[in-house]
Amino acid sequence: MPFITLTTDFGEGSLYVAEMKGVILSIQPEARIIDITHSLPPQDIRQGAIALEQATPKFPVNSIHLAVVDPGVGTSRKIVYASIGRRHYIAPDNGLLGLLARRHAPSSIISLTDRSFWRDSVSNTFHGRDIMAPAAAHLAAGVSPSKLGEPLVQLAPLDWPELVCGHDRLVGEICTIDAFGNLITNIDREHLDVLGPPQNLSVTFRGQTIFRMASTYGDRAPGDLVALLGSSDRLEIAIVGGSARNALSAGIGERVVVLGRTNATPIGVSSGK
Amino acid sequence: MPFITLTTDFGEGSLYVAEMKGVILSIQPEARIIDITHSLPPQDIRQGAIALEQATPKFPVNSIHLAVVDPGVGTSRKIVYASIGRRHYIAPDNGLLGLLARRHAPSSIISLTDRSFWRDSVSNTFHGRDIMAPAAAHLAAGVSPSKLGEPLVQLAPLDWPELVCGHDRLVGEICTIDAFGNLITNIDREHLDVLGPPQNLSVTFRGQTIFRMASTYGDRAPGDLVALLGSSDRLEIAIVGGSARNALSAGIGERVVVLGRTNATPIGVSSGK
Amino acid sequence: MPFITLTTDFGEGSLYVAEMKGVILSIQPEARIIDITHSLPPQDIRQGAIALEQATPKFPVNSIHLAVVDPGVGTSRKIVYASIGRRHYIAPDNGLLGLLARRHAPSSIISLTDRSFWRDSVSNTFHGRDIMAPAAAHLAAGVSPSKLGEPLVQLAPLDWPELVCGHDRLVGEICTIDAFGNLITNIDREHLDVLGPPQNLSVTFRGQTIFRMASTYGDRAPGDLVALLGSSDRLEIAIVGGSARNALSAGIGERVVVLGRTNATPIGVSSGK
Repeated sequence: MPFITLTTDFGEGSLYVAEMKGVILSIQPEARIIDITHSLPPQDIRQGAIALEQATPKFPVNSIHLAVVDPGVGTSRKIVYASIGRRHYIAPDNGLLGLLARRHAPSSIISLTDRSFWRDSVSNTFHGRDIMAPAAAHLAAGVSPSKLGEPLVQLAPLDWPELVCGHDRLVGEICTIDAFGNLITNIDREHLDVLGPPQNLSVTFRGQTIFRMASTYGDRAPGDLVALLGSSDRLEIAIVGGSARNALSAGIGERVVVLGRTNATPIGVSSGK
Repeated sequence: MPFITLTTDFGEGSLYVAEMKGVILSIQPEARIIDITHSLPPQDIRQGAIALEQATPKFPVNSIHLAVVDPGVGTSRKIVYASIGRRHYIAPDNGLLGLLARRHAPSSIISLTDRSFWRDSVSNTFHGRDIMAPAAAHLAAGVSPSKLGEPLVQLAPLDWPELVCGHDRLVGEICTIDAFGNLITNIDREHLDVLGPPQNLSVTFRGQTIFRMASTYGDRAPGDLVALLGSSDRLEIAIVGGSARNALSAGIGERVVVLGRTNATPIGVSSGK
Repeated sequence: MPFITLTTDFGEGSLYVAEMKGVILSIQPEARIIDITHSLPPQDIRQGAIALEQATPKFPVNSIHLAVVDPGVGTSRKIVYASIGRRHYIAPDNGLLGLLARRHAPSSIISLTDRSFWRDSVSNTFHGRDIMAPAAAHLAAGVSPSKLGEPLVQLAPLDWPELVCGHDRLVGEICTIDAFGNLITNIDREHLDVLGPPQNLSVTFRGQTIFRMASTYGDRAPGDLVALLGSSDRLEIAIVGGSARNALSAGIGERVVVLGRTNATPIGVSSGK
């Protein structure tokens, strides 16, 4: 029996999540449901895409991942099934699967149009419960994805801030913040590797320069601002033993620049700016 | 093996919830436990009743629903089992099951007095763990409800704000608010239907009139105040793409009036009040 | 199949928790995962130790309890397996298991050094996912704890505020606060019993004296400040129907004194201090 995971912006403890679980278990009582998160900022498709990319590949192949961040509920946006990286996804077609689809081209995309797999009564404001949850349950029960509707050629794109890559620098931004207040960027390991080994890289943020990336938080003293490669292989800015978000009042979208060691600037001495 | 759901005011991540799960699984390790919510406002029986009515009927028949909002713990209030709508409920007898019992008359009510189904040691302040969780686990293990104690004739009533229905209007109030900040009223589809089709109804709230109910959020422009039938078939007031609670500083208990189209007032033109 | 419980400071809804679940289920798909809490204050080892002591003994014997509060991740602190009270624990060796180990001496302690049971790629900042979660999954799959690494003689100690016991008094402190705002102390039933029966004990806090401990919240009127033995058998200070934390702006670490009835002071009359 495959797992069904849930990723939404409904809030932890939301009754809407409970309703979806009830609907799934009423169709397929053997389903094993795992919560990924319900703490996505309301209607924030980009944070949803980040969450799906970070968490779902850790689950067993054939897991069914149901994601609902759906500001367009009840309008003409489609609801889709997509097979990506040997996992099954069900989501509104609004970019939510965009980061996953950049990693692995979807091998199948279906628009969920067959009403026989919907809930008997479909509300205008809660398709997560009335269309997506039943689809996930039917998939778990062995229904072939192709039966759920009509094939689609491609998914709607995600609005995503692209990295700017110079010969000696990368310009990115804070793209998500975790509960510790660590600031996580869109600058990934592959791009950093091109610039040089981490201990040779400097990171500038808010006019401060952090010389040499650290390898873990404990490499620096409590209270120090550090830059390091986080557990999702992206550049992260943190305060050792504290919250960089709170200490710096930092927010999503702020610019971060990584500089390679292109000249003889002594490492470890701040330029004072 | 039936499901056991949990609905409490202990807070998400509460250790009290974990203790209840441990107690249940120690008695019946095969139990499948599902969280409905632990985010009810502390000691708010009415919000608990709303949660149970909204979520539990979505679960399979024969599920066991355990609810703990228990300001009277350790006093003379009873703890009850009730069979309602082919589901099993365990809760303090303080009105928490009141909305469910209005929908479907309970077919059996038992006061949980038989100490042989309680935890060995019973605290004065945590009957959720010491009496209710063991009862749920024993039910899941196949114990007949009638063995848990003495029959009761009726449940304690819930203090509930009743709708006022005029020939051309309904007067209700905000009775709950979801995590998106949508304001959900005690005005249900059945009563609205009597007044007329949604597109003919006006809703007044805080001195503003919303002409014509919408069918979904996307029917209006971002930032617009809308009134629509929510996913629980109750009138809901929302800000498209935003939070009505935050935008209006709105709270539970505030008055909402629905007006039918009883004269020639042109729809779509505000009366200016 | 034993249960695997999770206790972390990652935040409810954290993607880090979801990643750990994915890793566990990829190794052992039959594992049954239960969340204890993810709401521990960040990097607060003492609150983690309290949570583990309160919740984990309620679970069936042979459960596997995985706890991650790990400010020293990536440094030289060890990661350990310990068998305590017939339950299995996996945690960083930083005091997190300290309260449990005071109750029951660990029967086996292993440093998790065998990389063949780690994740293929191990980050510097997330050993919960890369070392601890795989270890828990392998244990659930039947791997013997002794295979996970090298035996250790003892666990790192926990920094813990000890009770001061006089012949007629106990001096302790607030050591945790629950979601209701109840103030829970490090003063336990055994020490209270030495002083006398609860109804003969007075409790002073913030210069106020609470005469006679109550047996449950409902013993006093709404708004009253009460002292009682909480559900974890520790002295607790509460406001009936309210939040003592909010009403008193009370915090962890504040001093609480319990006085026995050592002279003829009339009980029930405040001394006015």
